[in-house]
Amino acid sequence: MFVYNAWYMGAWADEVKTQGLLGRVLLNQPVVFYRTEDGTALALEDRCCHRALPLSHGCVVGDQLQCGYHGLVYDRNGLCVKVPGQERVPAQARVRSYPVVEKDHMLWIWMGEPALANPALIVAHPWHDDDAWVWIKDRYSIKSAYQLVTDNLMDLTHVGYVHQRTIGGTPQAHSDADTQTTRSETGVKVIRWMMDSVPPPSYVAAHKFNTPTVDRWMEIDFFPPAIVRIHTGATDAGTGAREGNREGGMAFMGLNLQTPETETTTHYFWSGAHTYDAGGLSKADLCSKLLASLTVTFAEDKVVVEAQQQSLDRLEGAPLVMIASDAGLAHARRMVAVMIENEAAASKAALNSEELSLAKRDSKDVPYEN
Amino acid sequence: MFVYNAWYMGAWADEVKTQGLLGRVLLNQPVVFYRTEDGTALALEDRCCHRALPLSHGCVVGDQLQCGYHGLVYDRNGLCVKVPGQERVPAQARVRSYPVVEKDHMLWIWMGEPALANPALIVAHPWHDDDAWVWIKDRYSIKSAYQLVTDNLMDLTHVGYVHQRTIGGTPQAHSDADTQTTRSETGVKVIRWMMDSVPPPSYVAAHKFNTPTVDRWMEIDFFPPAIVRIHTGATDAGTGAREGNREGGMAFMGLNLQTPETETTTHYFWSGAHTYDAGGLSKADLCSKLLASLTVTFAEDKVVVEAQQQSLDRLEGAPLVMIASDAGLAHARRMVAVMIENEAAASKAALNSEELSLAKRDSKDVPYEN
Amino acid sequence: MFVYNAWYMGAWADEVKTQGLLGRVLLNQPVVFYRTEDGTALALEDRCCHRALPLSHGCVVGDQLQCGYHGLVYDRNGLCVKVPGQERVPAQARVRSYPVVEKDHMLWIWMGEPALANPALIVAHPWHDDDAWVWIKDRYSIKSAYQLVTDNLMDLTHVGYVHQRTIGGTPQAHSDADTQTTRSETGVKVIRWMMDSVPPPSYVAAHKFNTPTVDRWMEIDFFPPAIVRIHTGATDAGTGAREGNREGGMAFMGLNLQTPETETTTHYFWSGAHTYDAGGLSKADLCSKLLASLTVTFAEDKVVVEAQQQSLDRLEGAPLVMIASDAGLAHARRMVAVMIENEAAASKAALNSEELSLAKRDSKDVPYEN
Ligand code: FES
Ligand code: FES
Ligand code: FES
Repeated sequence: MFVYNAWYMGAWADEVKTQGLLGRVLLNQPVVFYRTEDGTALALEDRCCHRALPLSHGCVVGDQLQCGYHGLVYDRNGLCVKVPGQERVPAQARVRSYPVVEKDHMLWIWMGEPALANPALIVAHPWHDDDAWVWIKDRYSIKSAYQLVTDNLMDLTHVGYVHQRTIGGTPQAHSDADTQTTRSETGVKVIRWMMDSVPPPSYVAAHKFNTPTVDRWMEIDFFPPAIVRIHTGATDAGTGAREGNREGGMAFMGLNLQTPETETTTHYFWSGAHTYDAGGLSKADLCSKLLASLTVTFAEDKVVVEAQQQSLDRLEGAPLVMIASDAGLAHARRMVAVMIENEAAASKAALNSEELSLAKRDSKDVPYEN
Repeated sequence: MFVYNAWYMGAWADEVKTQGLLGRVLLNQPVVFYRTEDGTALALEDRCCHRALPLSHGCVVGDQLQCGYHGLVYDRNGLCVKVPGQERVPAQARVRSYPVVEKDHMLWIWMGEPALANPALIVAHPWHDDDAWVWIKDRYSIKSAYQLVTDNLMDLTHVGYVHQRTIGGTPQAHSDADTQTTRSETGVKVIRWMMDSVPPPSYVAAHKFNTPTVDRWMEIDFFPPAIVRIHTGATDAGTGAREGNREGGMAFMGLNLQTPETETTTHYFWSGAHTYDAGGLSKADLCSKLLASLTVTFAEDKVVVEAQQQSLDRLEGAPLVMIASDAGLAHARRMVAVMIENEAAASKAALNSEELSLAKRDSKDVPYEN
Repeated sequence: MFVYNAWYMGAWADEVKTQGLLGRVLLNQPVVFYRTEDGTALALEDRCCHRALPLSHGCVVGDQLQCGYHGLVYDRNGLCVKVPGQERVPAQARVRSYPVVEKDHMLWIWMGEPALANPALIVAHPWHDDDAWVWIKDRYSIKSAYQLVTDNLMDLTHVGYVHQRTIGGTPQAHSDADTQTTRSETGVKVIRWMMDSVPPPSYVAAHKFNTPTVDRWMEIDFFPPAIVRIHTGATDAGTGAREGNREGGMAFMGLNLQTPETETTTHYFWSGAHTYDAGGLSKADLCSKLLASLTVTFAEDKVVVEAQQQSLDRLEGAPLVMIASDAGLAHARRMVAVMIENEAAASKAALNSEELSLAKRDSKDVPYEN
C-alpha cells in the first residue's frame, strides 16, 4: 500500500543526462526518465504499449522516445506519434506520462493523479545550492519496505547501538537525550538535545571544539510519505546553542528520501550538506573522506533494516511491543496510514462516477494471450 | 498451457552420445534422453518411480537405464525390469516413455498421447544434409515464454531496431518492406521483399554483389506450435529474384525451435544453413566466424524477450495495442490457441470415458508423505 | 509439519563460544544461541519483541542479551529487563526462551512445550567422550526436507549406487545383504549383514584384515523424529562377528542429526567415531584424511536428496512405488507421522481449554502495520 498522490524523489538529476534515459521501478510501476534536447526531464511509463518492452531499452530521438523493439515513437506526453510501416497510429497507442519537476538537483515525480501534482508541495532543500555548505550524496537499493527505513531515521536512539563503531559510541547519552516529538505543520518533528555531552569521534574529526564536551542537537523532520530531514550539530558546551546561538559550531543537514520500489524494496537516496572545517584538506578531499565514512554508516543501517524485513516476513503478524522512543515513528506511520486511507476512499468515489464510461471501454485493447 | 500432441525438438542429436544420457525439462515434464548400444535415442520420464530421483543421475547399462539411488533398472519402454534385492518387480513400477525420432541431426520428442505420434508430421529440414549448404547451430536457455520467441521471429520489423548494430541497420527499409501474410498449408507464411535496397554489412561481408543495391527477401514459415523457419537472401538488384531467378545470389536458411521448458522459460534451438561465399576463408573458419557474429545477434533477441517477459509479469493483463506488422504473430498465436483448445476438449472427452477405470485405481500407489 | 516436542540438535557445542552468539532458524523459528559468563548455553527467540531485529545482531552483556537496534536487554529467560531511555519495561516485552542441554559436545534444544522437556529423553552418544574412539564432525546446509535425509540413511542399499566411487563399490552385495527391520524400544532398528564379502577400498585403507573377505555389519538406529545412528564395521570373515566376537575388527559409529530448518531445508549435523588403525599416521592426520574423504561421500548424498526434493516439488503428489528395502524408512516415516498427529490432537485440546483467556488478550500488542 502506497501513497500515490505525493512527490517522490525518482532520481538524482545527474543520473539522467541530456538525451539519456534511465529505467526504474517506483511504487511497483516501471518508469523511464529521459531528457529532451533542451535538457528538460520527463518520465513515461517504461512499458511500450505495443508488446511491453521497457522503453528504457530504446533511445531518445530529439524530444521523443523510440521503442527499441519495433520502433514506435512516443512524444513527451506519452502519446504514440509514429508506428513504422503504417500510416495510422492506433487511438489507444499511448503510455502514461508522469509529472516531473527538477529541483535542488533532484528529479521529483508524482505517481498519482496528475491533476493534483502541485509543485509547491515539493519539500524544498536549499542546502544543495548554498555556498556556505558543501554536500555529498548517494543512492542505495535496500531490500526492505520503505517504512522500515523511515522508522530507522525517526528513532535515533539506534545510533548508539547500530553505529557504535562509527558515529555512535555513547548509547546512554543517546537514550537519555531530551526528546520532544510534535506534529509539525507538514509532518512530524522530533527534537533531541544532548547537552554537555562527549562528542563522538566523527564530530571531533570534523570540527575543532574549544571545550571537552558539547551541546549537541538532532532535529528530525518527517515529511510524509517518505522523506526525513535530519539536522544535527554541536557547539562548545554552555555557549547557548539551545537558546539559538549556534555560532562557532558545526552542522550537518541530512536529507533522506526512501522511495518505494516495490512493497519490500526501496530506493534510498540521501545527501549530506555540512559546514565541517576542512582543516588542511581541500573541500573535495574532505567530501570524499566523509562520503567514504558515511558509506560505512549507511551500510550498518542497511544490514539492520534488511534483517528486520526478513524477520517480519518469517513470522508475519507476530506481536511487537512499543517503547517510548517510538513516538516519532508511530506518528509518522499513522500519518502515512491516514493518507493511504484517504486516497483509497477518494479513488473509490471516483470509480463509482466512472462506471458508465468504463462499461463502454473497447475490450479489443487486449489482443494477446501471454 | 501447451500443445502436447506435437513434435518438439528435445535436443541436438549430438547432445546425447551413445551410452550417454541427458536430463531436460520439457513442457514442465522432466525427461531423460539416452542412447542404447546401437545408438538409438530414447526418452523416458526423468523421475524414478521409487523415490523420484531423476534417472539422469543414474547410468546406461546396455539398452537400459539404471537409477543412481537404489538401482532400479528400466527398459526402453520405461518398464522397471529389476529391483535389486528382491525377486518380484511391483506391477506399477514403471516410468513414462516418450516417442522419439532422430531426424536431420535433431531429436524430436512427442510429449502428448503416444498413439498420435506420427513421424510424418515432423517438420523436414533437408538443409542439414545438403552438400550445397553448410550449417551452424546452438542452443540457448531463455527466460521467457516460448511464444515471445515466436513473436520475435514472426515480426522481422524488429531487425532494424533490435539488431541495428549487427544485422539490422536500415529500420525504414524493414518497416517499408512489401509484406504478405498468409495461412500456409502447415501454418503461417510471411513473405517480405525489400527491392532495390542497400544490403546490410553482414550481407556485404558474406557475398560479393555486383550492384550497390540488392533485391532482398525474407520468407518466414511458422509451423505450430513452436517452429519458425526463415529463408533470407538477396541477389543483385533487378536480376529477377522476385520472379524466381536467384542465381548468383546468397541465401540463409534459419531454423528456430523454441521448445517450452516451463510456462516462462524456453529451450531455444537454432541452426543456420547458408551458401555464403567463403572468400579466402575455409568453410570451417567461415562457419566459426558466422557463429560468433550470430551469437551477438541472438543475445540481442534474448535481452529483448526476457525484458518483455518481466514487463508482462509486472503488470499482468494490462492492455496492449496491435499494429499492422503483428499480422504474422497474431495468426501464429491464434493457431496455437486453437490447438490448445482442441486438445483440452479431446482430453475432457477422454477423461469422461475413463472415469470408471480411474475409480478402480489402487490408492496404495502413493505410500509416502513428502 | 514438524514434531515440536522433541530434542533436536541445534548446534555443535563449539559453534557457540563463551560470550558469543549464533543465530539459526530451526523448525521455521528463528533461534539465537548464546553463552553466559560461566559458559552455560542458552537459546532465545531470535527476534526482538520491539521491532523484530534478530537478537543475533546484538551482543552478549554478562549473562544477558542486548538487541543491536535500540538496546533492549533480555535476561536468560527471555524477559526484557531494560529499555534504554525509559523507567518502565512494558509487561509484554519478552521473547521466547527454549530449553537447552549441552551433552556429548552437542547443544540440544526443545522447540515445543517447555514443561515437557525432559533431558532424560536426549539420545546419549558416549562415543564422543570415549578414549577408545576418535571422532570427526561437520555440518551441512541441505536444500531438502529433513525426512529425505532420514530416508537416505534408513535404506543403505543406496551405498552401492550413490557412493560407488567412494564407500560403495559392490551394489549387489549391498542389495543382497541379510536385512532385518524391527521396531526398537526407542524407534526403528535395521540390521544388515554382508557375510564373507569383499571389503570396500575405504575399509582396506582403514584396517589391516587377515582374510581377503570380511564379515561386515551395519546397524541402523532411528530415533524419531530426526536422528539416525549407524554402526558399521567388519572383522576377518568367519571369525564369529555375527555371534558377537568383534575382536580384531574395525568399527565406525556414525551419528546423523537432520534438524529441520524449514519445510524444505535441513541442518544436517554428523559425527563419525571410529577405531581405525592409524598405521604410520598420527591420529590427527588420520582424522583429517578421513574427514576429507567423508566430505566427498556426504556431498554425493547431498546431490541426491536435493535433486529428489526438486523432483518431488515439480510433480507434487505424483505416485511413487514402494520396494522391499523401504521397510526401514517406511517405519520411520510412520512413527514421525503418528507423533505429529498426536501433537496436533494434544494442541487442539489445549487450545479449546485456553479459548477463554485468548479472548481477553490485549489487541494493542500489534501496534505497527508493516
Ligand atoms: S514493443 Fe515497442 S514497438 Fe513493439
Ligand atoms: S529412487 Fe530410483 S531406485 Fe530408489
Ligand atoms: S528492535 Fe530490538 S531494541 Fe528495537
